[in-house]
Amino acid sequence: MFCGIVTGAVPCAKVAEDATTLAFMDIDPGADGHLLVIPKQHSADLIDIPADALAATVLAAQRIARVALSELDADGVNLLQCSGAEAWQTVFHFHLHVIPRYRDRAKDRLELPFEPGHPADAAAIAERARVLAAALETTSLEA
Amino acid sequence: MFCGIVTGAVPCAKVAEDATTLAFMDIDPGADGHLLVIPKQHSADLIDIPADALAATVLAAQRIARVALSELDADGVNLLQCSGAEAWQTVFHFHLHVIPRYRDRAKDRLELPFEPGHPADAAAIAERARVLAAALETTSLEA
Repeated sequence: MFCGIVTGAVPCAKVAEDATTLAFMDIDPGADGHLLVIPKQHSADLIDIPADALAATVLAAQRIARVALSELDADGVNLLQCSGAEAWQTVFHFHLHVIPRYRDRAKDRLELPFEPGHPADAAAIAERARVLAAALETTSLEA
Repeated sequence: MFCGIVTGAVPCAKVAEDATTLAFMDIDPGADGHLLVIPKQHSADLIDIPADALAATVLAAQRIARVALSELDADGVNLLQCSGAEAWQTVFHFHLHVIPRYRDRAKDRLELPFEPGHPADAAAIAERARVLAAALETTSLEA
């Protein structure tokens, strides 16, 4: 569907476009001004997307987020990227959500429960760091 | 606090480090393997961070996310960036969350309610696109 938006076959509320990226409003916004930035070249997700397309997409998102904060009088902004069905990805063309946030909850329906107080197991966390660091070191040597 | 992590004054479960970025485990994980990637140079948020530091941080996050998916047997991954207190930013040094996601909910406590069915006002959405596109065009001309 997002490839159709890139070609113009599928209509969208376009916000910005450059040689490699396109930004348009989310049709089911979590908050007022919620929009998506995509690379024009198809990639499924974060695993798939080439480095240059990823950098271009996030830099476009930054530029748009700055404008959204001032133009929409937003009080903050979230970037969200979902890769895989288990991460709530529903359209399998890489897209970066830009979600303005507001003190005024009427404009802001998206809850993201990062409450403190989840029990955290320090040893388990350290073990995760060790496994990932070791794997990344291997990756480095291969690169 | 994250500046202290960069200098080594504050301990962390380090995952990866290069010349400009540092990755370490979140001490209050929303899911198994939840980690943060930060630029070493201080920036408060997405508005503030220089383009090169932002690109380096997201590319480091991609590299780490690929490893996390394979090493932790994750089924998906979310990237999340919070800018401003209204967007749940609590540490005011730019950080990008890398959150592996799992079919196994015991490993995955983070809910992000992107339920469909929110009423979306197409005209209001189109107007948002118009305002932002106009402002971005002005920005472009000034740049």
